[in-house]
Amino acid sequence: MDKKNIKLTIEYDGTDFCGWQVQPGKRTVQGEIEHALKMLSGQNIRITASGRTDSGVHALGQVANFIIESGLPMQAYKQGLDRLLPPDITIHDAAVERISFNARRDAKRRIYRYIISKVTKSVGRQYSWKPRFRLQTHPMKMAAEFLAGEHDFSAFCKTASNTGDCSSVVYRSEFLENDSELIFEIEAIRYFHNMIRIIVGTLAEVGRGKLQPEDFNRIILSKNRNLAGPTAPAHGLYLVKVLYP
Amino acid sequence: MDKKNIKLTIEYDGTDFCGWQVQPGKRTVQGEIEHALKMLSGQNIRITASGRTDSGVHALGQVANFIIESGLPMQAYKQGLDRLLPPDITIHDAAVERISFNARRDAKRRIYRYIISKVTKSVGRQYSWKPRFRLQTHPMKMAAEFLAGEHDFSAFCKTASNTGDCSSVVYRSEFLENDSELIFEIEAIRYFHNMIRIIVGTLAEVGRGKLQPEDFNRIILSKNRNLAGPTAPAHGLYLVKVLYP
Repeated sequence: MDKKNIKLTIEYDGTDFCGWQVQPGKRTVQGEIEHALKMLSGQNIRITASGRTDSGVHALGQVANFIIESGLPMQAYKQGLDRLLPPDITIHDAAVERISFNARRDAKRRIYRYIISKVTKSVGRQYSWKPRFRLQTHPMKMAAEFLAGEHDFSAFCKTASNTGDCSSVVYRSEFLENDSELIFEIEAIRYFHNMIRIIVGTLAEVGRGKLQPEDFNRIILSKNRNLAGPTAPAHGLYLVKVLYP
Repeated sequence: MDKKNIKLTIEYDGTDFCGWQVQPGKRTVQGEIEHALKMLSGQNIRITASGRTDSGVHALGQVANFIIESGLPMQAYKQGLDRLLPPDITIHDAAVERISFNARRDAKRRIYRYIISKVTKSVGRQYSWKPRFRLQTHPMKMAAEFLAGEHDFSAFCKTASNTGDCSSVVYRSEFLENDSELIFEIEAIRYFHNMIRIIVGTLAEVGRGKLQPEDFNRIILSKNRNLAGPTAPAHGLYLVKVLYP
């Protein structure tokens, strides 16, 4: 029995989960994976993710790790685990890491995506947000640029969760666009509760003309949640990738 | 009260429907739309689609029509109906047609798409088929070309439904491809029960090397369902568009 630290790369469809973190009586991604690991190894294993995702949020490349003493071959953790899991969770990779690796502590950057649909649709409606109002893309793109750099993001931090320190560094904040979607991508060191959804909700206020791009910058500087827009729905948000050194 | 013939263009996510056609005690697309029309107009209206779709099959551009005597403005049939319908049905258009128009009888061509996913995924898994085996694309593309033209498609017609006449004309039959998907598109006058799903199941046998492209042509000519492959799952199939003169 050798002791291994295993790093998983995980996709999930957040639609039917009460988020990542285990909660009694709720269906969570962490709960499902720990249950599958129990079936696989017979052991109670606790896994650590790069960060929690809220109820309804999707992940294309969540990273989690766990330490296990077992003689199971590595393929048990990819194919084996994948087969034991429900179809709304997919294990894309399982790799051995140094024993001190911690998926949360060691994460250097996290990339999130928020998809706004330009069209009302049924096929794939659970994977993007369709606002009830029309959006002008150009002012949203201008406003999004103000996020880059080091800021105190208190204006975009859920009031009840704000413990005082909401500083982070945003490396990239931009809109991509195709015929049917407007896609916001952000790459930062860390995020606070509901931060991206409040940012997107505020950018949407810019897009509908209720705020100017410069107002968006003033809101960042104000550190006042009350000046920012509403929280955009969870089902447009994806954790895309977590970067490690 | 003027009498109008109204043509609807409809998208639906087939996942939670027992197909198009009304069946007692089952959730169907036709049933939902007729129920919404009843709420809207107070009348029992029967709608006619270009064709039924089976349980689990999606539609991006299904067409249906109904005749109604009502003073309701046209926007009631698009926005009004759309708001009364569940989110897995979207009304994209409502237009007045000549009184003799019939969505099924007048349809000249129907375009279907079948999406095969190259990758295992959770986000969007209900919208494509991921076979358990690897597929070689080139032989599938070659085989698909044999479908073009006028044929008796009995080999691809569900045995129990084969009433003898399975002739149709295929105008286009091709594979499109991107990094993550292999997309089969077919444009024909008409189709028979499970025809596209049996075609795709047989093309997949070509893709995995169990059949050669020429074997696929022999299967068409044989008119023998037993020589064709299994029926591919419903959730990869989309009714894309219906063409009228």
